[in-house]
Amino acid sequence: MPRPDSRQNDQLRPLVLERRANPYAEGSCLIRMGGTLVHCTATVETGVPGFKKGTGQGWVTAEYAMLPRATVERTSRERTGPGGRTQEIQRLIGRSLRAAMGTMAFGEYTIRIDCDVLQADGGTRTAGITGGCIALADACSWLAERTGQPSPFGRLVAAVSVGLIEDELRLDLAYAEDKDAGVDANIVMLEPAQFVEVQGTGEHATFSRAQLDTLLDLAERGIADLFRAQRQALGW
Amino acid sequence: MPRPDSRQNDQLRPLVLERRANPYAEGSCLIRMGGTLVHCTATVETGVPGFKKGTGQGWVTAEYAMLPRATVERTSRERTGPGGRTQEIQRLIGRSLRAAMGTMAFGEYTIRIDCDVLQADGGTRTAGITGGCIALADACSWLAERTGQPSPFGRLVAAVSVGLIEDELRLDLAYAEDKDAGVDANIVMLEPAQFVEVQGTGEHATFSRAQLDTLLDLAERGIADLFRAQRQALGW
Amino acid sequence: MPRPDSRQNDQLRPLVLERRANPYAEGSCLIRMGGTLVHCTATVETGVPGFKKGTGQGWVTAEYAMLPRATVERTSRERTGPGGRTQEIQRLIGRSLRAAMGTMAFGEYTIRIDCDVLQADGGTRTAGITGGCIALADACSWLAERTGQPSPFGRLVAAVSVGLIEDELRLDLAYAEDKDAGVDANIVMLEPAQFVEVQGTGEHATFSRAQLDTLLDLAERGIADLFRAQRQALGW
Amino acid sequence: MPRPDSRQNDQLRPLVLERRANPYAEGSCLIRMGGTLVHCTATVETGVPGFKKGTGQGWVTAEYAMLPRATVERTSRERTGPGGRTQEIQRLIGRSLRAAMGTMAFGEYTIRIDCDVLQADGGTRTAGITGGCIALADACSWLAERTGQPSPFGRLVAAVSVGLIEDELRLDLAYAEDKDAGVDANIVMLEPAQFVEVQGTGEHATFSRAQLDTLLDLAERGIADLFRAQRQALGW
Amino acid sequence: MPRPDSRQNDQLRPLVLERRANPYAEGSCLIRMGGTLVHCTATVETGVPGFKKGTGQGWVTAEYAMLPRATVERTSRERTGPGGRTQEIQRLIGRSLRAAMGTMAFGEYTIRIDCDVLQADGGTRTAGITGGCIALADACSWLAERTGQPSPFGRLVAAVSVGLIEDELRLDLAYAEDKDAGVDANIVMLEPAQFVEVQGTGEHATFSRAQLDTLLDLAERGIADLFRAQRQALGW
Amino acid sequence: MPRPDSRQNDQLRPLVLERRANPYAEGSCLIRMGGTLVHCTATVETGVPGFKKGTGQGWVTAEYAMLPRATVERTSRERTGPGGRTQEIQRLIGRSLRAAMGTMAFGEYTIRIDCDVLQADGGTRTAGITGGCIALADACSWLAERTGQPSPFGRLVAAVSVGLIEDELRLDLAYAEDKDAGVDANIVMLEPAQFVEVQGTGEHATFSRAQLDTLLDLAERGIADLFRAQRQALGW
Repeated sequence: MPRPDSRQNDQLRPLVLERRANPYAEGSCLIRMGGTLVHCTATVETGVPGFKKGTGQGWVTAEYAMLPRATVERTSRERTGPGGRTQEIQRLIGRSLRAAMGTMAFGEYTIRIDCDVLQADGGTRTAGITGGCIALADACSWLAERTGQPSPFGRLVAAVSVGLIEDELRLDLAYAEDKDAGVDANIVMLEPAQFVEVQGTGEHATFSRAQLDTLLDLAERGIADLFRAQRQALGW
Repeated sequence: MPRPDSRQNDQLRPLVLERRANPYAEGSCLIRMGGTLVHCTATVETGVPGFKKGTGQGWVTAEYAMLPRATVERTSRERTGPGGRTQEIQRLIGRSLRAAMGTMAFGEYTIRIDCDVLQADGGTRTAGITGGCIALADACSWLAERTGQPSPFGRLVAAVSVGLIEDELRLDLAYAEDKDAGVDANIVMLEPAQFVEVQGTGEHATFSRAQLDTLLDLAERGIADLFRAQRQALGW
Repeated sequence: MPRPDSRQNDQLRPLVLERRANPYAEGSCLIRMGGTLVHCTATVETGVPGFKKGTGQGWVTAEYAMLPRATVERTSRERTGPGGRTQEIQRLIGRSLRAAMGTMAFGEYTIRIDCDVLQADGGTRTAGITGGCIALADACSWLAERTGQPSPFGRLVAAVSVGLIEDELRLDLAYAEDKDAGVDANIVMLEPAQFVEVQGTGEHATFSRAQLDTLLDLAERGIADLFRAQRQALGW
Repeated sequence: MPRPDSRQNDQLRPLVLERRANPYAEGSCLIRMGGTLVHCTATVETGVPGFKKGTGQGWVTAEYAMLPRATVERTSRERTGPGGRTQEIQRLIGRSLRAAMGTMAFGEYTIRIDCDVLQADGGTRTAGITGGCIALADACSWLAERTGQPSPFGRLVAAVSVGLIEDELRLDLAYAEDKDAGVDANIVMLEPAQFVEVQGTGEHATFSRAQLDTLLDLAERGIADLFRAQRQALGW
Repeated sequence: MPRPDSRQNDQLRPLVLERRANPYAEGSCLIRMGGTLVHCTATVETGVPGFKKGTGQGWVTAEYAMLPRATVERTSRERTGPGGRTQEIQRLIGRSLRAAMGTMAFGEYTIRIDCDVLQADGGTRTAGITGGCIALADACSWLAERTGQPSPFGRLVAAVSVGLIEDELRLDLAYAEDKDAGVDANIVMLEPAQFVEVQGTGEHATFSRAQLDTLLDLAERGIADLFRAQRQALGW
Repeated sequence: MPRPDSRQNDQLRPLVLERRANPYAEGSCLIRMGGTLVHCTATVETGVPGFKKGTGQGWVTAEYAMLPRATVERTSRERTGPGGRTQEIQRLIGRSLRAAMGTMAFGEYTIRIDCDVLQADGGTRTAGITGGCIALADACSWLAERTGQPSPFGRLVAAVSVGLIEDELRLDLAYAEDKDAGVDANIVMLEPAQFVEVQGTGEHATFSRAQLDTLLDLAERGIADLFRAQRQALGW
C-alpha cells in the first residue's frame, strides 16, 4: 500500500525551519513538515515556579495550542483550561526541551516555549519539539548576552513519529496515516544518539518486541536528518 | 510631531489582504496592516444558538485571540475563559459582521469567524472586521453552492481606528501611537457610507464635538480605501 | 408614533437621586429614572491593583449586577463569572468615572463603585454612571477628610442613551423602546460639554452621518439636565 | 447587660413585611427586621430539575445573595459560584419553604425564591424564610389562577434566630450580638407549632440540655408573632 | 416495624475504631459503624488561613469526600469543587472538632482532618466526627512532642444520627432507614454531656417538641457509648 | 548499591490481589504491591460518550485519584478538575484496559474503572492497570450474565515500572527509587507477550538503545509474574 504522498516508508516529509519568524520573541522558529505548520517562540521571563525559588536555577516549560482551523473540522478553543491531550503534549515538549539544556544554573529565569499549530497534518507535537529547540537555542544565546555567562544550552533535541499502519512500519506519519495507525509512537532523541522519550501506544493493535525494534530503527534514522536540518538553520 | 512611520495623519498603513490563506476553512483571509497581522477564518457549522432554534434563520458570530508573542511582552493565553477585553472585541466583530449580511434567512447554520492575531501592532479588532468580511463573503458563497440558494451576503463592512495624540487627529493608529492616545475611536462602516458602530473612548482625555467631527471625517476617508482593497481581493 | 409614556422625543424620564441611600458605604446614591432603579455605592479600599502598586496613585473601578427579578423574565445570577455584556458595562462605568477624577494621586486606595440594578427598564448602565458619580464624589470627600488632602474629585460625569426607533430619534430610551431600536447609543459627558465616551451601535439598522449628528445633539441637551440634578443632589 | 437596642430578651425587632414590592415577580415581599432588609421574589418557571422530570410534580428552591455593601465591610460578589455558607443558607431556605407546600403535585413547574439581602444586620437567612413564604404564597395563587387548580400552598412557615450571649438567652439576634454569641440557633416552624428545622451551633461555647430547652421556648414565642404578621400581610 | 438489622431502636451499630490506620499521617483512625467505613487522617501543616495570621493561634479544619463506589450507585467525583452537601458536611466536621480543642494557642499550625468515605451506609458525617476526633487527639500529641508544649487537645467529641421513621424514633440510622426518614437529626456532643451541634431537619415531615425531646434523649445515650469506645481506642 | 528493601534488581515487590474488595461495585480489586495500595472498582453504566452513540458499541474508561495522605506529605484534592499528571494517568489506564477487551460490541454501556490510591509508594498507575484488569474482567462477567451474551473480556493486561537508578537497571521501583531515577519507564503488556504501551522518560538522564533493551527484558519477565497472579486471583 503506497503512502498518501508516495513517500518511502523511511522518508521524512519536506522540512522547512524558518528561524526568527517572530519579530518580538527572544527566540523563534516556524517549522513546516509537509502539511504541518507550527509557530514556536521562546520567551525569557524573570522568575521561576515555586519549587525552584531560591535555588538560583532556571526553568524551561512549554505551552501548546491549535488555531481553530488548523484542522479540517474546526476545533474549539480550550477556554476552560487545557484538556487532557493538550496537557500531555505540553508536558512532553517541556520535558524534552529541558533535556536539551546543558545546565539549569542560568539564574532564576523561566524560558517558556509556545508551540502554536497553524496547520495540523500529523506530528504536531514532535514538530513542536524540533522547532522549539531552535527557539530555545536562540533564547539561551539572548540570555547569555544579557548575563555575560556562557549559553546554558546543551545539545540538540529532535523528535519524530513512527507507526504501524496495517502491516507496514513507517516514519513521520501524516494525519491520514496517523488516524488509522494501529500503533503510534513518538520518539525524542538528544544529539547524537541518546533517547529522551519513547512513547509507543497501541490502542487499535498491539506490537511485538521485533516490531518495536524496527520502529526505533526508523526513528533513529529520521532524527539524524532532523539534527542536520537544525544545525543548518542555526548556522552551526 | 511626525508619525513613527512618517505617514500623513490621514494615511492608512500598507495593507495586504491574502484571501484563502487557510487550506481547510470555508472562507479565510490573512490581513496585514503595517505590523498588524490577523488570520481570519470562517467556519460554517450546522445548528444555531438556542435563541435562534426553530426560526429557520442562521447566525454569525466571532471569536478573537492573540498568540502569546503577538505582543512585545508575552501575553498569557486566556485559558480560564476570555477576559473582558476579549469578549468586548468578539462582540464588536460579531455585530459588525452580522451587519454585512443581506439576510439571516440562510437556514440554521452558524458562520463562526475566528480572528487570531499573529502580530499586534495596533488596530487588531478593526483589522479582524475588515479581513473577517472577506472570509465571511467566501463562506456565504460556499454555503450558496451547497444549498442552491443565492448568497446571503449583503454589503461590505470595514473598520478603522482614529485617535487624538497630543493635539493631532490621526487615522489608523499603530501601537506606539495607540497606547499614548488621549482619545481612541473605532469606526465600522457599511459600503458605501453608513455607520455600523462608532466607539470613541477618552480615558486620558476628553474630546469636543468639533474633534469628534474631524475623527469621523478621517475614518470615512480611510474606510473608503479599505472598501476598494476588499473589492480587489474578492475580484468584484 | 407616540412614546410609551407620552414623553417628547427630547425629554428625559422622571429622575430621582437619593443620596446616601446606603447606611454603610463611604458614598452612595439610589438613582431612579422612570422604571429603572440602580443602587450605587462607593467603597474605599486600601491597596491598588498590581499595575498601580508603588506609584502612590489610586484607582477607581466599577462592578455591575442585576437582581434576578430586576427584569420581566428572571435573569440568572452570574455565578460563574461576569458575562461578556456585564464586563463591557463594568468597563464602561469604570472608565467614565475615572474621567470624573481631578487627580489619581490620592494615595494607594481603590474606590470601587457597585451598581446593583433593582429594576431594569432601559438605560441601566447610563443610570449607573450618573448615580455612581454622586457616590464617587462623596467617597472622595470622605477620603479627603481622612487624609487631610483636598478631594481628588474633578468634574461631574453623566450619561444617557439615545436611539433611532423606526424613523424617530429619541432621548433616554425605556426598555420597550430600546429592545426594538435600530440604533442604540450611549453618550457619556464631562461637565460642562466634553465627551468621554460615544458608543453607537446599529445591529438592526445602520445610521447616516446626519442621524449621528442629531443623536449627539439630543444627548448633549439631556446630559445638561442630568448635571443640574446632580448638582442639586450634592448641594453644590 | 442590656441589648444594643434596649429590647427585652424575648422581644423581636420591629418588623415590616412589604408584600408585592417587586413589579415583575409572580410573588414578592420586602422584609425588614430591625436593620436587616431582604428582598424576596418568587418566580414560576416551566420545567423541573432532572430528578423530578416525568413525575408531574413541581419543585421549590431558593437562591440567596448579598449586595456588596449590605455589610459594614464590603463583601465580594460570589462570581465563581456560591461559597459554602451561601449554599448552606440556600439549602436551608429551600427545605423550609418546601415544608410550607400543601402538595408538590402542581405540575412540572419550579418556583424559585430569590432572597437578596440589601442590608445585613443579623438574621438574614431567617428573614429570607419568613419573607420568602409570603412571596411563595402569592406565587402559588398566581399559579392556581393560571392552571385552574387550587393553590398548592399549605401552611405558613417562619423562622427566627435565638442565641446565648454571655449568660443570657436571647431572641432575634442583631449582628452585634450574633458575632459574639457563644451559641447561635436558627429555628424554623410550621404553623401552628411544628418544627421544620432546629440548627443550634456552639463554636465559641457549648450548651446544656436546659439551655437548649429555653432557646426553643423563646423561638416558639417569637415565631408565633411572625405568623400573625404574615397573616396580616397576606390579608388572611 | 423491626429495624433492617434487628437492632433495638436505642442501639448503636457494631463499632470498630482502628487507630493509626494510615502509615504517614500525624494522626489517623479508620472508623467502622456497621456498613459505614470512614478513613480519617489528621495532617499538621505549617501556617494558618489569612484571618488567623499573626495571632499566634492555630486552626483546625476538615475535608470530606467519598470514593465513587462507596455508594450502591456510583457517585461522581467532585472535580469542579465540593458541592453544597459536601461543604455543609465539611463545615460541620470542622466546627465540631474545633470544639474538642482545649486551646487554639498552639502556634500557627493548621490541623487538617481528611474524612474519606470508603463505604457509605448512613451516618458518614457523624462517623467522620467520631473517628476524626481520634486522629485529632493523636495529631495534638504529635505536635506537643515537637513543640515541647502540652497537648492543645481538650475534650472528646462524638456524634450520632437519630431520626423519625414512620412513627418510630431511632438511634444511629443505616442508609436504608435514613433515606426514608421523615426527620433526620445529627447531634454532636462534648464529653461528658454538653451539646456542640443540634441539626434536626424535617423535609418529609415535621416534628413536635415532644418528639424532639425523645430524639435528644436517644442521642445522649448513644454518644455516651461512643465516648467509652474512643477512650478505649486511645488507651485513656 | 542494594535496593531499599534488599530485593534483586529483577524482583517484584510482594503482591496481593484482593478480588471483590468492594461490596457494591460490579467488579473490584484491592491491589497491594509492597507499600502501594490501590482500590480498583468497575462500574457498569448505561450509555456511552457522544462519539459512540448509536454505534451499538460500549466504552471503557478510567478515573484515578489519591487520598490526601496516600503520600508522606499531604497532597491536595483535585477539586478544580484533574491536573495534567492525573489526566495523563487516567488516559493511560483507560487505553490499557480497552486493549484487554475482546470486543467493544457489548451494547451501549460504559465500564468505568476507578483507581483510588490509598497508599502511594511508587508504581500506582501500573498497579491501577493490573488491579483494574481484575475488576474489569468481573464486570464483563456481570454484564454477560445480564445480557445473556458471552463476556466481552479478551486477554489479561498488566503493567510494571522499570528504571535506571545511577547505573543500575531495576524492576518495579518503589517511591524512594523512583524519585531519583534518571530514567523511568512504564510498560503495559497483553498476555502472553504483546506490548500495549511503552513509555520511557528520561528527565534527569537519557538512555542508550542497549539500556532500553535491558529495561524491556526486565519488564517482560516481571509482567509474566503478574499474569500468573491475576490468573490465580480470578481462579482461571
